[in-house]
Amino acid sequence: MSKYDHIREEAFEANMQLPKLGLVLFTFGNVSAADRSLGVFAIKPSGVPYEQLSPGKMVIVDFDGKTIDGSLRPSSDTLTHAVLYKHWEKVGGITHTHSTYATSWAQSQRDIPIFGTTHADHNTVDIPCAPPMSDDMIRGDYEYQTGFQILNCFKENKLDYEEVEMVLVGNHAPFTWGKDAAKAVYNSAVLESVAQMALLTEQINPKAPRLKDALIKKHFERKHGPNSYYGQ
Amino acid sequence: MSKYDHIREEAFEANMQLPKLGLVLFTFGNVSAADRSLGVFAIKPSGVPYEQLSPGKMVIVDFDGKTIDGSLRPSSDTLTHAVLYKHWEKVGGITHTHSTYATSWAQSQRDIPIFGTTHADHNTVDIPCAPPMSDDMIRGDYEYQTGFQILNCFKENKLDYEEVEMVLVGNHAPFTWGKDAAKAVYNSAVLESVAQMALLTEQINPKAPRLKDALIKKHFERKHGPNSYYGQ
Amino acid sequence: MSKYDHIREEAFEANMQLPKLGLVLFTFGNVSAADRSLGVFAIKPSGVPYEQLSPGKMVIVDFDGKTIDGSLRPSSDTLTHAVLYKHWEKVGGITHTHSTYATSWAQSQRDIPIFGTTHADHNTVDIPCAPPMSDDMIRGDYEYQTGFQILNCFKENKLDYEEVEMVLVGNHAPFTWGKDAAKAVYNSAVLESVAQMALLTEQINPKAPRLKDALIKKHFERKHGPNSYYGQ
Amino acid sequence: MSKYDHIREEAFEANMQLPKLGLVLFTFGNVSAADRSLGVFAIKPSGVPYEQLSPGKMVIVDFDGKTIDGSLRPSSDTLTHAVLYKHWEKVGGITHTHSTYATSWAQSQRDIPIFGTTHADHNTVDIPCAPPMSDDMIRGDYEYQTGFQILNCFKENKLDYEEVEMVLVGNHAPFTWGKDAAKAVYNSAVLESVAQMALLTEQINPKAPRLKDALIKKHFERKHGPNSYYGQ
Repeated sequence: MSKYDHIREEAFEANMQLPKLGLVLFTFGNVSAADRSLGVFAIKPSGVPYEQLSPGKMVIVDFDGKTIDGSLRPSSDTLTHAVLYKHWEKVGGITHTHSTYATSWAQSQRDIPIFGTTHADHNTVDIPCAPPMSDDMIRGDYEYQTGFQILNCFKENKLDYEEVEMVLVGNHAPFTWGKDAAKAVYNSAVLESVAQMALLTEQINPKAPRLKDALIKKHFERKHGPNSYYGQ
Repeated sequence: MSKYDHIREEAFEANMQLPKLGLVLFTFGNVSAADRSLGVFAIKPSGVPYEQLSPGKMVIVDFDGKTIDGSLRPSSDTLTHAVLYKHWEKVGGITHTHSTYATSWAQSQRDIPIFGTTHADHNTVDIPCAPPMSDDMIRGDYEYQTGFQILNCFKENKLDYEEVEMVLVGNHAPFTWGKDAAKAVYNSAVLESVAQMALLTEQINPKAPRLKDALIKKHFERKHGPNSYYGQ
Repeated sequence: MSKYDHIREEAFEANMQLPKLGLVLFTFGNVSAADRSLGVFAIKPSGVPYEQLSPGKMVIVDFDGKTIDGSLRPSSDTLTHAVLYKHWEKVGGITHTHSTYATSWAQSQRDIPIFGTTHADHNTVDIPCAPPMSDDMIRGDYEYQTGFQILNCFKENKLDYEEVEMVLVGNHAPFTWGKDAAKAVYNSAVLESVAQMALLTEQINPKAPRLKDALIKKHFERKHGPNSYYGQ
Repeated sequence: MSKYDHIREEAFEANMQLPKLGLVLFTFGNVSAADRSLGVFAIKPSGVPYEQLSPGKMVIVDFDGKTIDGSLRPSSDTLTHAVLYKHWEKVGGITHTHSTYATSWAQSQRDIPIFGTTHADHNTVDIPCAPPMSDDMIRGDYEYQTGFQILNCFKENKLDYEEVEMVLVGNHAPFTWGKDAAKAVYNSAVLESVAQMALLTEQINPKAPRLKDALIKKHFERKHGPNSYYGQ
């Protein structure tokens, strides 16, 4: 028994959803789960195949990226998770994947336009694509800087991380987050579906208009806010 | 035992087909089954994962959208179902999904052209895309107005809901219907396949012609009408 | 025991491969298996779901399309099968599907260009697309005329049905054949794969050249002809 | 017991991964595993379905392509494998597939541009496409010449086979390799994913830029070289 068992279990369960949802090839993805009272998160060990994962293999890391507990090396993206947890206080889980369609949008360095209600059910804006880093940032502490690249993208675009729980990192791939690890994984699957349909929409109609403001507002409020009426 | 058991069972079975047919991600879809003699329909509860559904969780609603029986909140799209049942007297089942290709056509705000016999086996016309609502309609009783948006689209295009059992709602997603819930689900899968092939057809040949009238007529009559010779 | 048991079993097994290979939605496909000495073929009954099929449900039909044995109505495409068996004496099995990519090429009314060795391993020419029928032919005995449309396409293009075992029927869908039902199904899967890759090839490079003649010849001879060296 | 058992087992296990990873239709692929001390490799027999494979059916061949042990005919691509083993001394496993997206790039005769970090995690350059052979080479010992076509492509582009473990053969399909058979199969799956995302990237943004040099270097070094920090 350890005081980290609950987030190890949570991170493990969430990581195991990635292959089930078709969001990862081999080990190209990772999920973490935080315990804010302990100031740490549990994250997938680096390069370990999903079929060999277990809760006990999750690595415990603090919000500065220092390994606190666990015998394996944490995901190579650990510092990006740490930066987001440190600066965004209500985030409880983070997911990173190289899912096919979201990654292709990231590679194309375009925001994903809001074309329909599937998108609006989850976000009121285009899904932002943070620009690739400067060469200096890349040569420095890369994964740490990736976190700041995301923070800066949200600052510059005046986005609220509690409303927009997903981002594309230019040339790289998506990160998503939420109140817990399960919500972060859910957002990764939603993003992948929205990314695929946005590409198809432009292929069917290159002049497809963005969704009307009234419809954006309506659909988002159906699922979120004080008068939401989706779910139980 | 309840007098609603048969439609609860029917709606449950039909809802469970959606994930099997690859038509939904998470809970983004719902099916209802009506009993016209009782003046009610059974519909999926809102936001409940498919793996947690059971016949008993289906909610009984009348054709004005009022919940008659059941402890859970019905699907957020319930009022759209109610309007269609109320105005189209021979509809016995309705399906709503955000399936990838049909939704992408809806987002592109284009009718799906009739390019081949797979389409003609089920419809003699392009699959209509109802335009997005006015801002006033959206701000009002949104799901209720969605139903009228569909009714108006059929009126304006002089379509018969007994012949054309599917529609795209612009910027939103498809609705399909039929004599019972199973047929409505069947139509959702057919629509998704037709939607995918129509996009591919335009990609292979941007000048692909619509299907000839003689062929439209022939294929539809093979499956429908007094001299149909498809099936047993 | 019946003298038709062997082709009923053969047709049943071959039909059951269609859903496994992802070539059909619902009942949109059929396979037949012929016994030339008896002058008949066994074919899938019309509109019966795959999960309800059994060898005993296969219908026995002669090469003029007359039902010889069986209590169910044969596939609505039966007359097309009959015409091909009657005129092409070495065909032992025929498959018809509405598989996604092959059907989209048929809807686009284009031959599938020979772009690579996967295609050349099976055919030395572009896969032909027979033009849609004249209105008179459609209004007549439609499925019977579909067979002649295929025969005429091969005659006009001087193709040999023993070398080219697949065709697209314009606006409709593919037919494939072979020495037995299993080979006909195999050809349907190969056609679907070749059709998908041809579209992707044109998307990657709109000026992609057809395969060189020397390479067409080489690959086809690897698998076919007196000096073939593929397989055991 | 035989001195070849270990590579037969290794080749068998690796071949069985191909259908699991969705990289082959029917028998359109093969993997080999080499033992450098014995100067031989084990390779899949030609045209044998995956469900009928067993370690004992793997054929033992030397680096000149001569069959040393085994009762079946080796893969028709055996000579290509032999040439690569003979000239590239540190290769321990080779895979050949006709996977959908990689083969479509090969058919389009284009190198796959490096658009993102998924690509850079494995290669620092565009994935090369060797041009189709001259007619003389095709008419000669075709599979043998295919090996030289690959070697020449790497020589002309000054590529190191230990850094770039994959190639497209123009009009044909991909070959990948690695220190053992499992790594060669891994590379085939990575290539297929990179190939799909590169096409999608160009579809989303026809002017998508190649990845920055600093990012290419960073990501490759994360997984490779003396300071790599990916995995355990």
